[in-house]
This record gives sequence, structure tokens and C-alpha cells, in this order.
Amino acid sequence: MKNFTHCVPTKFVFGRGAEDEAGAQVAAFGGTKALIHYGGGSAVRSGLIARVEKSLDAAGIAHVSLGGAQPNPRDTLVYQGIELARREGVDFILAVGGGSAIDSGKAIARGAGYDGDFWDFFCGKAKLTKSLPVGAVLTMAAAGSESSNSCVITQASTKTKRGVRSEFNRCRFAIMDPELPMTLPPYQIASGATDILAHIMERYFTSDTEVDLIDRMAEGAMQAVIRAARIAVKDPQNYDAQAQLMWASTVAHNDTLGVGRTQDWGSHQIEHELSALYDVAHGAGLAVVFPAWMRYHMEKNVMRFAQFAVRVYGCAMNFENPAETALRGIEAHEAFLREIGMPLTLKELGAKTGDIPALAAHTKKTNPDGTTGGVFPMTPADIEAILQIADRD
Amino acid sequence: MKNFTHCVPTKFVFGRGAEDEAGAQVAAFGGTKALIHYGGGSAVRSGLIARVEKSLDAAGIAHVSLGGAQPNPRDTLVYQGIELARREGVDFILAVGGGSAIDSGKAIARGAGYDGDFWDFFCGKAKLTKSLPVGAVLTMAAAGSESSNSCVITQASTKTKRGVRSEFNRCRFAIMDPELPMTLPPYQIASGATDILAHIMERYFTSDTEVDLIDRMAEGAMQAVIRAARIAVKDPQNYDAQAQLMWASTVAHNDTLGVGRTQDWGSHQIEHELSALYDVAHGAGLAVVFPAWMRYHMEKNVMRFAQFAVRVYGCAMNFENPAETALRGIEAHEAFLREIGMPLTLKELGAKTGDIPALAAHTKKTNPDGTTGGVFPMTPADIEAILQIADRD
Repeated sequence: MKNFTHCVPTKFVFGRGAEDEAGAQVAAFGGTKALIHYGGGSAVRSGLIARVEKSLDAAGIAHVSLGGAQPNPRDTLVYQGIELARREGVDFILAVGGGSAIDSGKAIARGAGYDGDFWDFFCGKAKLTKSLPVGAVLTMAAAGSESSNSCVITQASTKTKRGVRSEFNRCRFAIMDPELPMTLPPYQIASGATDILAHIMERYFTSDTEVDLIDRMAEGAMQAVIRAARIAVKDPQNYDAQAQLMWASTVAHNDTLGVGRTQDWGSHQIEHELSALYDVAHGAGLAVVFPAWMRYHMEKNVMRFAQFAVRVYGCAMNFENPAETALRGIEAHEAFLREIGMPLTLKELGAKTGDIPALAAHTKKTNPDGTTGGVFPMTPADIEAILQIADRD
Repeated sequence: MKNFTHCVPTKFVFGRGAEDEAGAQVAAFGGTKALIHYGGGSAVRSGLIARVEKSLDAAGIAHVSLGGAQPNPRDTLVYQGIELARREGVDFILAVGGGSAIDSGKAIARGAGYDGDFWDFFCGKAKLTKSLPVGAVLTMAAAGSESSNSCVITQASTKTKRGVRSEFNRCRFAIMDPELPMTLPPYQIASGATDILAHIMERYFTSDTEVDLIDRMAEGAMQAVIRAARIAVKDPQNYDAQAQLMWASTVAHNDTLGVGRTQDWGSHQIEHELSALYDVAHGAGLAVVFPAWMRYHMEKNVMRFAQFAVRVYGCAMNFENPAETALRGIEAHEAFLREIGMPLTLKELGAKTGDIPALAAHTKKTNPDGTTGGVFPMTPADIEAILQIADRD
């Protein structure tokens, strides 16, 4: 177990009707004028934005609004938000939506408190040292942005998707009502569940040993997510399944299941290229990339992949041939993804074989030696090989 | 899954040598003069207190000290600490030790900021609304007080042990070095592990359904604690086992494994009577009470106790007779406790059969109707019956 520092100060307000707490929470964290930042029109049509506004009014919080946050949120809207926040003298960003609205809101909050170009934080030119406070009303269980330290934005002009990790990226509060995702299409629920699992798996496939406590908790969480996803995709009105997924989205990405261990994150970097270029749902991209990543790397740590197979998917251990067990686990994961309606191939994402070399070359290098991934460092050639595995029929 | 609010703002600094961070952390949280509050002489003899003082000096933090916190910490020392803190103008309490020193430190912090008698908070006369900030340097994995919202103190004159839960009871930071518990006697390591398991089990044996995510994570954590305890009791120098136990102590009691569900806490209330009267280690008392509590209540929710047996101890499920499986789980838990050197009977604690009615009558009533326990409410007669089960040979 490695040394670590860990702090998740986010206050969670979880349950039916929790969004009516929004105003009281903004006030409790010192806000007097909020920018409500949300995504598409569904939050307006469903009456959610009106409820949130009513709750801000009741708490005496002034507010302005900016909608339009898209999946794979763009820098262009962030610039608009920064300008609006400055012009209106906003002192609190209230993001209403899934990971896209929250990440876009985080970026606005960072940029509004910074004299330069907010993209400086995303291309490594500047380091976050302050920010406006951000709160979230979560409408979708997926990204975990409501309590994670990460924020991912796409530069539209270059189709470059980049993330920043910083303790300044933690929301002050997260309001989580499991009834809100009930109106989502099953495909989005499934994409969210895939993202949640991927966040756990990026932490799970470590090279470290003696990490039993977090391994066991992560395996339990993955089993619960798989079960809840199967239910919620078929029956989005199932409160308990939505509740498991919603809390899992937070647990999966605030490092409750990641402390004290080397983590990989290579699959996420590869997927960022897919969603930046083809604008696919992040979870759908991960459904394609992660199994290919597993197939490519499993022989480097067969016993860990076998452990995943046995403990998460209940595969029988083949003691004479652990690699066979490891492979059964990957196949079980693929079968699960297929069952909930996720794609497994690049073709299903609309990706072209000819794009593979460019996708591999453009993937962010996360290590000083120019490779990508904390556990299994990958060269562009490795990434190309993984994308070729995903380029199946 | 029930509605909940959850917030653990504690900053964790975990790993070898983390205690050298104490001064920097006190300073980061605004302290200028600290009361170092610790337990027995071992913290002094081992050089730990000197290292902590050196770290405070380096950060420019003035300090005074008060040792003597005992297991089942007494109000008498708390009064001394409050007086010292006021006289010296202390603005930060730095507890160095296990749950006893931390709880004693929390009570001093509460009392120093209150005009009346600090015991008012423990007998229900007053509600916590402020406190001096508290930080912890943990030397023992057990109580989880380093990030829990609880604080338990014994009134020496009446042998009354009472706990208070409040968000004001969260430490600002917790410094956790798994090397520090290596010098503890195996009995104390085992008592700590038993306490950790009990904290998870008080949350696990719920009457709620559809709590799969937290169930699975809790089962995983229990498996890891059982494994690590077996190792650490035999080989206290095993860093990784100590590390698993130390992080588990925090996870077990800060509600990471308890959100969204009805919890019981009846066993803890009964145990508080034993340790107040006989001054036994809290974990040892729980080793005696919890299995008896399980035997008494298992028929009220056989399938949950069977789930514990199957998932935590790997018992085979008897589908024709789940009660038999449930009982195998309790027996497996008893065998584990025995294996790590814990007592299982009242006699081993030095308790007398004749005291049982008074112990039962004195147990804190936690429900408005005068019963004890959130999941299986108990009358004094029920508690007497449980203590009689524990009064075996």
C-alpha cells in the first residue's frame, strides 16, 4: 500500500426531492449570486431548472442562467460562461446536469477567477490555485464529477480533449436525487454505468500488491453496479437501482476505491481521442476501448485479471491455466456491456480504420518518457494495437 | 436506499513518516497554539511525542502537553484538559494516540469552547454548535475516531459511558502511519480489529432492502479486515497488514459503509456498560457481546445473517435451511475472534453473572419508546437474555 493524501470535503445531499435543497446549500457555502449552468432543454422542460430557481429564490440567492453544455463539453461555452460570470458578478457556480454540465461549470469557475486563458490549466501552462466555489445538482450517474478532483474539456477548434486534476476541482456540495435519471434513455443509463465501472477498473488493474482492502471494496462495488445497471436499463423507473448507480458514480471516482495504489488511466486517454473526434458518449467509447485494453495487457498480470474474472463475474478459477480464466472475465465483461446495449467495436462508434494511427499519435502522453498509462505504459504503437483489437466486426 | 446527508471533510495523510507532517497540518488549519493530548508513556518513550513536537516547532506552532488519556477515557481528565486549554489560550487540539486519546481530545475541544459543563453534551442537556478544531496522529487502528462523527466518554463517578454524534466531532486532519501500531501487544491489535469489524457489522445488519452497493463494499472490507488481522496479530511488523487495518478503521466508522440504511448500534450500547463497569478493552467487550447479539436476533432476519455467512466467511448456503447457514456464520466469526486471541465469554472479561440485570437496566435507551438499537429494538429483558448467552463457559 502506497503513501497517500486523501480529502473529499464535498457535502452530499442524497435522496428524493434533494434538489429543493439547492438554495439552502448555496447559501450555506457563502454564495449570494449563482450562475445556474445546465445542459440541454430537458432540464428546463422537466421543470428541474424552475425548481432549482425557486429554491434559490427562497434562500435569497440571486441567479443568472447559461444552458447548452453538451456531452464532451466545449471550451467555446466555457468562454461564454466566464464572460457572463464576470459581467454579472457571480460568486457561485451551480451546475445542474451530468458530468458535462459539471465539468463545464468547473471550468467556468476556474476561468472566472483567473486573468489569463482558462485553457492554460488544461495544456499545462498554469496551475490551479483558486476558483469560484461550485455546487452540483446531479441528473445522471456516470462521470462522478460531483465529488472527483477532475475536469475534462474539449477544445473545439483542435478537437483536443484534456483533463485537469486538482483539489480545487471538488464541488462544495452535490445534490443527488435518484429520481432525476429516470427520464434518461436506456442508452445513456448504460453509458453512465460503463463509465462508473471504468473509473473503478482504472484503479483496480494496478501493479501493486497488498492492496486487499480496496480490491475487495472495489470488487463489491463493481458487482453492485453490474446488477443495478441490468435493472435500470430495463426499468429506468426503479428507484433503488438508480440510487445504487448514483451513489456508485461518486464512490467510483472520488478515490474511495483508489487510495494507496498505482492507477492506470490509459483507457481513458485513448477514449478521449474517440469522443473528441467522433463526439460519441464517453461511456460508449469506454465500452469499446476497455475490453481491447484488457485483452492487450492481460498477459502482463494474468493473476490480477483472473482475480477480476473470479471475484467480479463469478468465473471458475482454472488453476492450471489462469490466462484462460482471465480471458473468461474479459468475455463476461463484454457480454455484460452488450447486454446493456453498449457498442464493442470501433465501427459501431462510426470510427474509421484509417484514423487509428492519428488517434494513437494524438493520445495524451501521461508519463515523462512519452508513454501513456500508469500501470501498463503504452507507446503510440501499443495504442494502435489496442485500437486494432477494437476494430473488429 | 434511504435518503441521507454525508460529509467527511477530514484530510488524511497516510503512510510511513506521516507524523512529521503534524506541524504543517496544524498550521494549514489555522492553529497557532496546540494542546498535544496523548495517552500512556509509550508515546513519549517511543519518541513519537518528541517527533510531533519537533514538527510543531518547525511550523512555528506553540504547544503545551497533557498525557494520561486512558482506554475508556474519563471525564476527570477532560476537565483537566479544558482548564489547561483555557488557561494557555490554546486554539488547536492535537490528539496523539488511538480512539481514547482522540475522543478525550474531542471532548476537551468541545468543552473549551463552551461555558457550561462539557458533560451537558453527553447527557443530552446541550447540543454541540461549536468547538476548537481537532487533528489526530493515529497510533492504533480501531475506533475510527480520526474521521468519525462520534466521541465517547466515561463519567468516572457514576461509571456511565456515553457517546455523542455530531458533525462537530470530525477531525480536521488525520495523520496515519501504519508503522506506529507495530509496537502494540497482539491483544490490542486484535481488540482494534474486532472494533473495526463491529463498526461495519452495526451498519451491515440492517432491516433495509436494496442496499446492495454498500452491502458488497462492507462485505469486501470485512474480508480484508479478517485477513489483515490474522496476519498482524502474528506478525505486528507486517506493514501491509497494519496499513489495511489502519485504513479500514477509518472506512469502517466514517459512514463510507453506512450511508442510506438503518443501522443498529445495540451491541455497542451493551458493550459500553461492560467497559464502563469492568474497564475492559472496548474491542474485547464487543467480541463477547456481538456474537451473543447475533445468536439472539438471527431468526428475525435469517437471510441477512446467512448472507453474512456466505459472503464474508465463505460458508456454503444451505438452501433448505438458511438458519443453519446463518448459525455457521456466527460460529465462523467466533472462531476467528478466538483465533486472534479475543475473549468470547463474560467470565473472560471478569464480569459477574449477578451484575447482568443491572448492566441490562443501565444500558442507554436509544429509542423514544425506551428500547435500545435501531434495527432490532431491545428491552432490558432482551439485553439480559443476550448477556446470558454471553455468560457461557
